[in-house]
Amino acid sequence: MADTATSKYFLTTEEKLKHFVIEALERSGVSHAHAEVVADVLVEADLRGIESHGVARLDSYYIARIRSGHLNPQPNYHVVRETKTSVVYDADNGLGHPVSKMAMEAVIAKAQEYGAAFGGVRNSNHYGIAGYYAMMALPHDMIGMSSTNSVKYAAATFGREVTLGTNPFAFAVPAGSEPSFVLDFATTTVPKGKIEVYKRKHKELEPGWAIDSHGNMTEDPDEALHGALLPLGGFGTEGGGHKGYGLGLLADILCGVLSGGAFGPSLPFADETKEGAISHWFGAFRVDGFRDVKAFKDDMDAELRYYKDSAVARGAQRIMTAGEPEILKAAYNRQYGIPVHGKVWDGLNRLAGELDIDFNLPK
Amino acid sequence: MADTATSKYFLTTEEKLKHFVIEALERSGVSHAHAEVVADVLVEADLRGIESHGVARLDSYYIARIRSGHLNPQPNYHVVRETKTSVVYDADNGLGHPVSKMAMEAVIAKAQEYGAAFGGVRNSNHYGIAGYYAMMALPHDMIGMSSTNSVKYAAATFGREVTLGTNPFAFAVPAGSEPSFVLDFATTTVPKGKIEVYKRKHKELEPGWAIDSHGNMTEDPDEALHGALLPLGGFGTEGGGHKGYGLGLLADILCGVLSGGAFGPSLPFADETKEGAISHWFGAFRVDGFRDVKAFKDDMDAELRYYKDSAVARGAQRIMTAGEPEILKAAYNRQYGIPVHGKVWDGLNRLAGELDIDFNLPK
Repeated sequence: MADTATSKYFLTTEEKLKHFVIEALERSGVSHAHAEVVADVLVEADLRGIESHGVARLDSYYIARIRSGHLNPQPNYHVVRETKTSVVYDADNGLGHPVSKMAMEAVIAKAQEYGAAFGGVRNSNHYGIAGYYAMMALPHDMIGMSSTNSVKYAAATFGREVTLGTNPFAFAVPAGSEPSFVLDFATTTVPKGKIEVYKRKHKELEPGWAIDSHGNMTEDPDEALHGALLPLGGFGTEGGGHKGYGLGLLADILCGVLSGGAFGPSLPFADETKEGAISHWFGAFRVDGFRDVKAFKDDMDAELRYYKDSAVARGAQRIMTAGEPEILKAAYNRQYGIPVHGKVWDGLNRLAGELDIDFNLPK
Repeated sequence: MADTATSKYFLTTEEKLKHFVIEALERSGVSHAHAEVVADVLVEADLRGIESHGVARLDSYYIARIRSGHLNPQPNYHVVRETKTSVVYDADNGLGHPVSKMAMEAVIAKAQEYGAAFGGVRNSNHYGIAGYYAMMALPHDMIGMSSTNSVKYAAATFGREVTLGTNPFAFAVPAGSEPSFVLDFATTTVPKGKIEVYKRKHKELEPGWAIDSHGNMTEDPDEALHGALLPLGGFGTEGGGHKGYGLGLLADILCGVLSGGAFGPSLPFADETKEGAISHWFGAFRVDGFRDVKAFKDDMDAELRYYKDSAVARGAQRIMTAGEPEILKAAYNRQYGIPVHGKVWDGLNRLAGELDIDFNLPK
């Protein structure tokens, strides 16, 4: 969501960025093992070009919350329910990434043994990109899924109150020689950050992105920031807004209600500084429960190529499949450096000073 | 998608309509047991107000295909793969509903034993409403899922070729005293039938519904009918069209590729009369793998009420949760009669004559 037209970017490397994140978190009281997982998830987001979910949040969200006492740097992650094919963790208000990785690893191990499994995490905090956990299933020749609820930004179809998070879903499916299919999407039309960028640029919003505080559709970023985001599909039901609303509510149910965590009414708003009340959901099942993996992957390649090779609309450049833009971006960023937005870069530099660690990020 | 403004409706009852469907299918060579399942699924759609997926298809799709030899009325449904938590059926080009009910029953039985399970069906035909199969999980205190691919109507984001079905997903979650949460949605913005209705009414389409044959967005129903439907989220990526495209392709993967059936390139177009090449996907997992069912259902009630009781947008009447409109409609239709569109009514009357069965539908 960076304002690329008017901002400067600085380049760093995967290794340097991870090292920095680990040091900063350790200085903030997080164990080395947990800090490594957070670094891996955040830097993966930056590599894949999803800046909004990468190191941009290190100081502004994770470390800020540890400092203010709203996030527990040394949580007692513990299992509250477990069966052959399910596991639920309580994150004890700790960082969302390590406990989510543990939960997805447990789900994968159970799916390895029984074929299919699901898991949940409650009392957690922001866990980064949903796709990270869904993709953990890929090397095991499984289909992976994940979802999380989030602080509230969006309204229900026909509503005007802020009642829903951006509540993303991610699904990952292995392929053969083609890039894996990785669908990772917020169930709102756009993220809040996009409204803020349009405000800075004095640009009108697209129809279907947001409503004002009365529940009318608005193209004014200021009105939208006092109103609410709209679900995928936009305003009302004509463009399918009820489908996005349904998916957002499904995410809140699978994450919050199912794990025994906070949901709907008890979820915090974006501007509240409360203890972590976020919940996550995970799933995995084996491809070979349906057919031989080799045949499946061959057909996946044919499937993905069919869409990519189909005729392009007038004026468009190419057709991609879900996950492909991120894989291309990650390959590019690994070779030429990970771009970090000037404002984020300055923040990391300031953080280095505060925590008395080296700012050794430049590529 | 009936043209309610200009059309007459006739009223019938659930019992009479089911009886008629069963008789018509039996006369067409379908076994009584299979005909009963088809009748149950089709009439459930009409009860729930989803006319496009109800008896409107009895003659025009199911019996027409049996007559033309493109659908096998006495299929040998058989399991081609089975594990503790998975099952895959080959439908032998038979009716989609009975084999889908068998597959979902098997998935539920496996989930009862192991906690979670998935299933697939290949070489099938249209299976009715996806929600029917997801809802089968509800009395077992499970969360149910289903998806199907369909003949092709839609384009990929930035594409202009017809490459994707309307590929719906359905998710059903049990609640306590509130109606269950049942989300059942096509991954295109609108169904093809809606474009046809707008053509008849000489109305302009909404933006984001369809493209012309060059891949430009169009509001002209004629151009759209020679073009393609757009994925949920609309044209390009500004409104999230890539998310709907991703969901549509995910459905094709989970149904077609995973079951070893037809997918993308080999799926028929809507105007092709080919043998059944449709595939379905099913899933279920136990709520009590996560938490006690009673506590879950109490929280589901609180969750669903929170959205329904939140402030309504200016000009809107009320906020509902997924599945609620259909439950209200079904209760109404049970009491006052199921409305059948005049054109469909006449078709059923004609069919009765052709098959030499009583036309005893009027309420």
